[in-house]
Amino acid sequence: MLKLYGYWRSSAAYRVRVALNYKGLDAELLSVHLVKDGGEQHQAEYAILNPQELVPALIDSDSKGELQGEEQEAFVLSQSLAIIEYLDEKYPENALLPQDLHDRAIVRAMAMSIACEVHPLNNLKVLQYLSKDLALDDGAKSAWYHHWINEGFSAFEKQLVKYSGRYCFGDNITLADLCLIPQVYNANRFNVDLSPYPNIVRIVENCNRLDAFIDAAPENQADAG
Amino acid sequence: MLKLYGYWRSSAAYRVRVALNYKGLDAELLSVHLVKDGGEQHQAEYAILNPQELVPALIDSDSKGELQGEEQEAFVLSQSLAIIEYLDEKYPENALLPQDLHDRAIVRAMAMSIACEVHPLNNLKVLQYLSKDLALDDGAKSAWYHHWINEGFSAFEKQLVKYSGRYCFGDNITLADLCLIPQVYNANRFNVDLSPYPNIVRIVENCNRLDAFIDAAPENQADAG
Repeated sequence: MLKLYGYWRSSAAYRVRVALNYKGLDAELLSVHLVKDGGEQHQAEYAILNPQELVPALIDSDSKGELQGEEQEAFVLSQSLAIIEYLDEKYPENALLPQDLHDRAIVRAMAMSIACEVHPLNNLKVLQYLSKDLALDDGAKSAWYHHWINEGFSAFEKQLVKYSGRYCFGDNITLADLCLIPQVYNANRFNVDLSPYPNIVRIVENCNRLDAFIDAAPENQADAG
Repeated sequence: MLKLYGYWRSSAAYRVRVALNYKGLDAELLSVHLVKDGGEQHQAEYAILNPQELVPALIDSDSKGELQGEEQEAFVLSQSLAIIEYLDEKYPENALLPQDLHDRAIVRAMAMSIACEVHPLNNLKVLQYLSKDLALDDGAKSAWYHHWINEGFSAFEKQLVKYSGRYCFGDNITLADLCLIPQVYNANRFNVDLSPYPNIVRIVENCNRLDAFIDAAPENQADAG
């Protein structure tokens, strides 16, 4: 039995929702409202589950936790890419990483070029810091957002010229697509001009024709509002 | 034949240097000066190699590149965690990820809680943006740095209470140690008080007794200055 704690607009939760759909795995989706009441992710009950106070968190009650010498508990995992690699190893069907050592490495690097370079700079907690702690106005916040998106997407577009087929890496869905599509969804919210990135636009269109992506989209979640 | 493009103070390159040492792999270390002349990582020759214009980049000339229908070239890989997973798969001896599915997932999540949450907010390009584009003074930059370090280390400390032994996850060196030690090196440069994190301090001391970490330390690199 899988449970995923997420939030409709969280890019990281969105990645995991696509993975679950693509692999045909049933999971109970539980909403952690990232804004209401200062953010439900900071409430004590959730913070015990994930001390990082971030979504997503996966609970796999088929697997046992790692506590030694204590009563075992369900397996709890944070960090979207770690969750997706775990699901891909436990449920190999509809693999999200290629079999070949080199191909797999390139896909991981493409995924991390978004997950480690773009998303961390533009997520909710950072934008809140810019507003509250640095008192940036909307123009300066927008410039920040666009700067990191454009830097990241420029490099990603060059990788796509080299590696893409129908999707980010060849003609199969991979972890790289699972990172790109939520980041583009987010970029559209911030009115980023995607015309310099024709391969990104093409691949987003291709992915968003698939049920795995459609069903995982923020606007199709029960907690969207 | 392995070549690693890096820079002595780059935390991401430091992670890969430890991996190479720990696994006993010879690699030619090539320096890309991240500050001189506006940053050598932005020069055309390097940008072709790594369009993200970041270090590290690994070249494995034993392996062939992925270009189809063109002359094959050496395999080039970016993103430190993708590089380390590649090395760990290609050279399994002295594994940096545990064998057990659940243990491996936790180690990846711990590594990513630094690589995706702390380091991206405090690396050179971000601090340069804070100075140049946002005109923050040293106090505001320091507050930014300390905020994200303390948030990340607080969560990491809680993970260590649960999972650590002699090192971050049990008694073997893992990918999590390779992320923690460079981040603590960096935090010390910014005078972060580590006393709230006794497990982090303990594990850093344990790691820094090992040759793999000593030889990879920034001050022991040929390009240190």
